[in-house]
Amino acid sequence: MRQFSEKDINSLDKIYRLNLINSITGYKSANLIATQSKAGNTNVAVFSSITHLGSDPALLGFILRPTTVPRHTYSNLKDTGIFTVNHISSDIISDAHHSSAKYPESVSEFDMTDLEVEFKYNYPCPFVKNAPVQIACEYQNEYPIKENGTLLIVAQMKTIYLQDKLLQEDGWVRLEDGNVVSINGLDGYALPKLLERFDYARPKKI
Amino acid sequence: MRQFSEKDINSLDKIYRLNLINSITGYKSANLIATQSKAGNTNVAVFSSITHLGSDPALLGFILRPTTVPRHTYSNLKDTGIFTVNHISSDIISDAHHSSAKYPESVSEFDMTDLEVEFKYNYPCPFVKNAPVQIACEYQNEYPIKENGTLLIVAQMKTIYLQDKLLQEDGWVRLEDGNVVSINGLDGYALPKLLERFDYARPKKI
Repeated sequence: MRQFSEKDINSLDKIYRLNLINSITGYKSANLIATQSKAGNTNVAVFSSITHLGSDPALLGFILRPTTVPRHTYSNLKDTGIFTVNHISSDIISDAHHSSAKYPESVSEFDMTDLEVEFKYNYPCPFVKNAPVQIACEYQNEYPIKENGTLLIVAQMKTIYLQDKLLQEDGWVRLEDGNVVSINGLDGYALPKLLERFDYARPKKI
Repeated sequence: MRQFSEKDINSLDKIYRLNLINSITGYKSANLIATQSKAGNTNVAVFSSITHLGSDPALLGFILRPTTVPRHTYSNLKDTGIFTVNHISSDIISDAHHSSAKYPESVSEFDMTDLEVEFKYNYPCPFVKNAPVQIACEYQNEYPIKENGTLLIVAQMKTIYLQDKLLQEDGWVRLEDGNVVSINGLDGYALPKLLERFDYARPKKI
């Protein structure tokens, strides 16, 4: 086993540390968050920190980096109170990754990639067309993480759209059937294949 | 596309909603958190909410469900201030899942599964033996999420152990080479295969 002590971690080159620490916690979710400014400019950006927070109410959270540089996703969702979460499938990983490039606020990542914008039922926030799962979310709260100046955004899932073939009889969503990917570190995209689904774990007799 | 409105989500059967909402945010990390009580009882439990929070300092977070029922992981990490994060590889998914069964505090999940305990260098907290990645963590803070009564635990990664073959020249950890899995919902375990690793995304000329 290779070992990194606290002292080793602290003395790493910045890029090396970014790669190591971003990939060491395991696979991450792969989503595009789409927003629209009050002026009507659309924005889409890749996020790998979206986490299930609870089922009743249906809540998710994600982490935003410090607001010391412009973060269009954050300013739009604060201004409008809404955003959408769209799953990244294997056919759009290159465009999804490119959405992390830093463009001015007036430039939509939808125009700079082959990602297509979709509006549904007059909902004033874009979705990513053809994403296997699309979730309309409403901002609820934010928690400043004082240990490093990041923000945990908490949001409620208001409307869920998913490809019919993904939905199983008991409500479980078979992500594999939408070719949904997961992220390894900052820049690795991987396609999971289901190994097994288990029953609810009950204690063995002691 | 299948659609669930807010009203649909609220009126779902409890188990159906648990399955749907737990799997709709995408693939999740797959980790075993191991702790030890002050009395020396070991505990290990599966978690799917561990998220990278930042690289400098090296921070991770995870979500704990309400403390209305005994949560041995939480009481141990509060008492001792430390815990370990151990990646789940494809060969231990059945035992890892079984660690979610509710045993009394005096019973170690290490004894009720084939998961093996490992102690290193007198560090007073167990690791899961043969896990491809093992991280010794120190509790930093907790943030109560008032929207649903969960807790975000923030911890610093103090020492990292990983199989040599996983570590790439630039610090990136190739999780695939450790057969690290990801979790789909409450009970699905999937094995990701790397599709591509991209360069840092720079804006195209406008």
